[in-house]
Amino acid sequence: MIKVGIVGGTGYTGVELLRILSKHPQAELVAITSRSEAGVAVADMYPNLRGHVDLRFTVPDHDQLAACDVVFFATPHNVAMQTVPDLIKRGVRIIDLSADFRIRDAELWSHWYHDQHTAPELLKQAVYGLPELNREKIHTAQLVAAPGCYPTSVQLGLLPLLENNWIDRSRLIANSASGVSGAGRQGKIDNLFAEINDSFKAYSVAGHRHLPEIEQGLEDIAGGPVQLTFVPHLLPIVRGIHSTLYAELTTEVPLEVIQAAYEERYASEPFVDVLPTGSHPQTRSVKGSNMCRIALQRPQGRNTVVVLAAIDNLVKGASGQAVQCMNIMFGLPEAQGLDIVALLP
Amino acid sequence: MIKVGIVGGTGYTGVELLRILSKHPQAELVAITSRSEAGVAVADMYPNLRGHVDLRFTVPDHDQLAACDVVFFATPHNVAMQTVPDLIKRGVRIIDLSADFRIRDAELWSHWYHDQHTAPELLKQAVYGLPELNREKIHTAQLVAAPGCYPTSVQLGLLPLLENNWIDRSRLIANSASGVSGAGRQGKIDNLFAEINDSFKAYSVAGHRHLPEIEQGLEDIAGGPVQLTFVPHLLPIVRGIHSTLYAELTTEVPLEVIQAAYEERYASEPFVDVLPTGSHPQTRSVKGSNMCRIALQRPQGRNTVVVLAAIDNLVKGASGQAVQCMNIMFGLPEAQGLDIVALLP
Amino acid sequence: MIKVGIVGGTGYTGVELLRILSKHPQAELVAITSRSEAGVAVADMYPNLRGHVDLRFTVPDHDQLAACDVVFFATPHNVAMQTVPDLIKRGVRIIDLSADFRIRDAELWSHWYHDQHTAPELLKQAVYGLPELNREKIHTAQLVAAPGCYPTSVQLGLLPLLENNWIDRSRLIANSASGVSGAGRQGKIDNLFAEINDSFKAYSVAGHRHLPEIEQGLEDIAGGPVQLTFVPHLLPIVRGIHSTLYAELTTEVPLEVIQAAYEERYASEPFVDVLPTGSHPQTRSVKGSNMCRIALQRPQGRNTVVVLAAIDNLVKGASGQAVQCMNIMFGLPEAQGLDIVALLP
Amino acid sequence: MIKVGIVGGTGYTGVELLRILSKHPQAELVAITSRSEAGVAVADMYPNLRGHVDLRFTVPDHDQLAACDVVFFATPHNVAMQTVPDLIKRGVRIIDLSADFRIRDAELWSHWYHDQHTAPELLKQAVYGLPELNREKIHTAQLVAAPGCYPTSVQLGLLPLLENNWIDRSRLIANSASGVSGAGRQGKIDNLFAEINDSFKAYSVAGHRHLPEIEQGLEDIAGGPVQLTFVPHLLPIVRGIHSTLYAELTTEVPLEVIQAAYEERYASEPFVDVLPTGSHPQTRSVKGSNMCRIALQRPQGRNTVVVLAAIDNLVKGASGQAVQCMNIMFGLPEAQGLDIVALLP
Repeated sequence: MIKVGIVGGTGYTGVELLRILSKHPQAELVAITSRSEAGVAVADMYPNLRGHVDLRFTVPDHDQLAACDVVFFATPHNVAMQTVPDLIKRGVRIIDLSADFRIRDAELWSHWYHDQHTAPELLKQAVYGLPELNREKIHTAQLVAAPGCYPTSVQLGLLPLLENNWIDRSRLIANSASGVSGAGRQGKIDNLFAEINDSFKAYSVAGHRHLPEIEQGLEDIAGGPVQLTFVPHLLPIVRGIHSTLYAELTTEVPLEVIQAAYEERYASEPFVDVLPTGSHPQTRSVKGSNMCRIALQRPQGRNTVVVLAAIDNLVKGASGQAVQCMNIMFGLPEAQGLDIVALLP
Repeated sequence: MIKVGIVGGTGYTGVELLRILSKHPQAELVAITSRSEAGVAVADMYPNLRGHVDLRFTVPDHDQLAACDVVFFATPHNVAMQTVPDLIKRGVRIIDLSADFRIRDAELWSHWYHDQHTAPELLKQAVYGLPELNREKIHTAQLVAAPGCYPTSVQLGLLPLLENNWIDRSRLIANSASGVSGAGRQGKIDNLFAEINDSFKAYSVAGHRHLPEIEQGLEDIAGGPVQLTFVPHLLPIVRGIHSTLYAELTTEVPLEVIQAAYEERYASEPFVDVLPTGSHPQTRSVKGSNMCRIALQRPQGRNTVVVLAAIDNLVKGASGQAVQCMNIMFGLPEAQGLDIVALLP
Repeated sequence: MIKVGIVGGTGYTGVELLRILSKHPQAELVAITSRSEAGVAVADMYPNLRGHVDLRFTVPDHDQLAACDVVFFATPHNVAMQTVPDLIKRGVRIIDLSADFRIRDAELWSHWYHDQHTAPELLKQAVYGLPELNREKIHTAQLVAAPGCYPTSVQLGLLPLLENNWIDRSRLIANSASGVSGAGRQGKIDNLFAEINDSFKAYSVAGHRHLPEIEQGLEDIAGGPVQLTFVPHLLPIVRGIHSTLYAELTTEVPLEVIQAAYEERYASEPFVDVLPTGSHPQTRSVKGSNMCRIALQRPQGRNTVVVLAAIDNLVKGASGQAVQCMNIMFGLPEAQGLDIVALLP
Repeated sequence: MIKVGIVGGTGYTGVELLRILSKHPQAELVAITSRSEAGVAVADMYPNLRGHVDLRFTVPDHDQLAACDVVFFATPHNVAMQTVPDLIKRGVRIIDLSADFRIRDAELWSHWYHDQHTAPELLKQAVYGLPELNREKIHTAQLVAAPGCYPTSVQLGLLPLLENNWIDRSRLIANSASGVSGAGRQGKIDNLFAEINDSFKAYSVAGHRHLPEIEQGLEDIAGGPVQLTFVPHLLPIVRGIHSTLYAELTTEVPLEVIQAAYEERYASEPFVDVLPTGSHPQTRSVKGSNMCRIALQRPQGRNTVVVLAAIDNLVKGASGQAVQCMNIMFGLPEAQGLDIVALLP
């Protein structure tokens, strides 16, 4: 059994880690910390866990965490980087679900997250936890930076097009939409039911923090500079991200060839499902599951390829992908604990 | 492995059976029939099942069904009673999710379902599939009538009060509310998103078909006549039933005593969770799970006991309870395949 | 033109007052105050008001308010009672949408609102602003306490039954459900979209602050003691209250007679609509309008009468009713500015 | 008073016409026809109209319609073109909300609507009812083709950019999302609440019928060929369209200059609201109103201009715009009957 600690488990990625790990046959939940909720039973805060998780939140304790095989950080940004260096020294493996170790360039990080990075020496060591791209490195990593939700959907959606060098990398567009759980569990007026329901809007069009993460990832894939226009939108749904991606072909490639390239690239991936040409993935088809479903179109046979990618932001976009990384790190079957059928309807 | 057939699998209870049974370690899905969708891959209709269920819908075939150990009927009312008698003769065990065998009195059934019953001889033989009441009979039954969704929540909510004979049985009230999936998957204008969303209403106040089923069940529990006012409401949610039950004490019983009676009555029930006094069960705390969560109150210390009961109408209210019955019938661990954490948020 | 001031206009009842008053032919908006948002344009906070309301929020200024003909208080509880006495002395007429002046008994008020009442001398003077009950008194009142949302629906629903003395007043039940806008516009985790959507629950079953207000109102109508079990629920909708009311007949009265009594009692009421027997009012049928729609049933012809009442909690349950009171106070046509068709779908 | 007839008033654009016209000071509703619902009171089908509209649906009667000053067609496609020619001959003015007269090229129409056009001679005569583009022609038109919902948002969003010839017309992108009411009021499984709620998807990516209408409109504006990639999405909301438009500058134009051009172009338009730079229009800010709200961005200062445009698909995208056209045709104040504040929250 792998001894697992979770730091900052009161948010939505925390409860989602618990939902998955409480049924994982190789994971033993040892500690879940929350300074503000110390003493509270996890199941009192999250009634879905009654009968499944007996733990109480505890004050973070380095020694207790150091005794774990792996510690997940489900904290807000700027928290993990305070604690991770010490745990790294003590030999613990870390999976950070926050943004602290996703961007390799500390200055770029500071620009977008409005703070000094306190552990820049770990940025090079951290492995970006997108299994479809970095499986080997994840296997041996001590510190994994789990990708953001939008970045997961955009990178998986564009990966084969970029690897084949078929598209103009200077004018990519990602029109993405997310469920409100992606905004976390803070009492903000903007995220009230009465503000969100029966409405729709774009947000952060001038610049969203996931933009540098996505561009870094796409450049790693492409092996060269990439320019992306990224427009996120807020959906009146709880879970789900849907990215509609627009890429312009620089050379004639029939849709069937593109489709075949996607199917081949992802043939052995347990959590990427390439739908038949012309499909329209729905977010509910992945609700609660770790799957990313992708479909392709070339409207009117013109030069613009449209890629549709759907994930559950809390699963493949956060906690599920983190567990997938854990499985890879510890040599377990990659889908262990993640063989979940999406809840539909 | 238990060979399982499903008749009429295109509705919401059908896909829910598939979601559960496809991960059940002892169930082997042999056939799923649908006259109208014969030839269609199940996963093409229900994209959440891609990668989990490979079957195609087939035309119903008695010989194929007769080779199953158990056949689930997830058909509209008035269908199962045509086919079940033959399968019963051929020794197949049946779990009917429709209303055909729930009411023992054929005339009463006819009154509410506006049709002649074609297999009245089976009504006495059928066992009402509420494990908390009829576990022993279910174990040996050949024909199980799985309870309706509203009836499950109302009966579990009132059972200990009735068994203890603490309340006036002539003036019970069940104010229930259901998600729209309970209305099935037919193209009716009333159930369109644009008709349901951001609205709420009562329906069938003059008389809902679940009333005679509930009263029969409550009378079985009470051992005498019961009168219930039952008002169902339609919620703008997909899954979930919440029943607010009002009962008048005929004798002074402190709330703590009532609470203790509920906790004791359900102590060994795997799928009934009595919450601490004063809790308010949310439907999302059981979304996708087979759990029924119950809480109790005596507002202002007056004579009216208020019971709150929440289930997922498609799981404990239909397909999950049906699988629970299957487990009991075949001597499997009762929670096998049903140890699912509800999806929250 | 009537000079109108609004104190505390940043909440949902405030924006709703502005939506209505900005089109009211006899109202001139003079001031809208908010300490926290002083200087902000109202239309920047509420984009629906762009082009309709040019005002900015200002710091509350007694002299400015004293120059108004009427001042609406759309503040949280415990605020109006600090300011109202001074304005009353200066001759301003007041319509308070908060609970500060709804309950005549200062001790009872303190018990439920956990505070000392600072203006108990005004409690007797205040007129409860339910036009269907107190139209004459409202006309001459200087201080009107606009009813709460739940109380409006429950009192209008039970009024003719009580006036006719047909029911057992000691065992009334109000099973009510409200949209989330009723909880106001504070950044509370419990009211986040991700907490509310696709779920349903009861709340405050042990005792909700509207209970004493409702019982006081029902006793005024009945002319004697009343006992009500009141169970509020939270709906995943923005606007709307639906009350399902249960009353037991103490004498045989045919449903047609009850129906006729309701139709007669409300025949000249501009904002109460008695639907044909057997109807089921939907909350969306009153969304954005000041109407209360009511329907009646006697299920199975038994002794329990079921009354269904639907209002928009922000209109007839708050701001619309307050404007209706203003119209009555100033001798304007009662429906002026309120002749709004509900938004459906 | 203008005598108004409505053909096919049972759908959502029909009820929306009634909501608006029943309060229009110059409109007299004479007839509303529906073959299937003849004899039914309009308010029985649409309870929000109780007390506002007394009409019953009638079988279409040419003589009755010919006696109207204007007839609105709120029919499915392929219906108006059967009846309109006769009414045109009899001098009636027509506002068609369907697609029958929107596309000038009969062959192109046939290609997309899979039918022969039966009144091709009227296609040239019909005026495309976008007031911001064709106000003068609408004033004198006998036959107005009210624009589609998506086309309205896309054309208003791109109009100033195209008129100024600042962008590459060969690679425009419209990523649009619509509420479900846009799909009409037919009993289709795809539009059930249980299929739509808490989910999101693109649809008709290969080719949506609004594409040729939009391209025709954009080419009229640009005075030359235009290529648009148009991807519609289905939102779990009832009303609202949000279009996120991407255009590439072919010359350096600062965002302030673009902003100024939009503000100037729409300065005197009653129903186009250009928000401050950097705003994010929400669909709820126009719910129930005839307003189109637009905002502009140049993310990262790169070459791609992002335009956000929000309308209510049933108002500015259908019935409101049709009434705006009626006002223009009959020389009434353009905003008469349309000065409605959006419902928020």
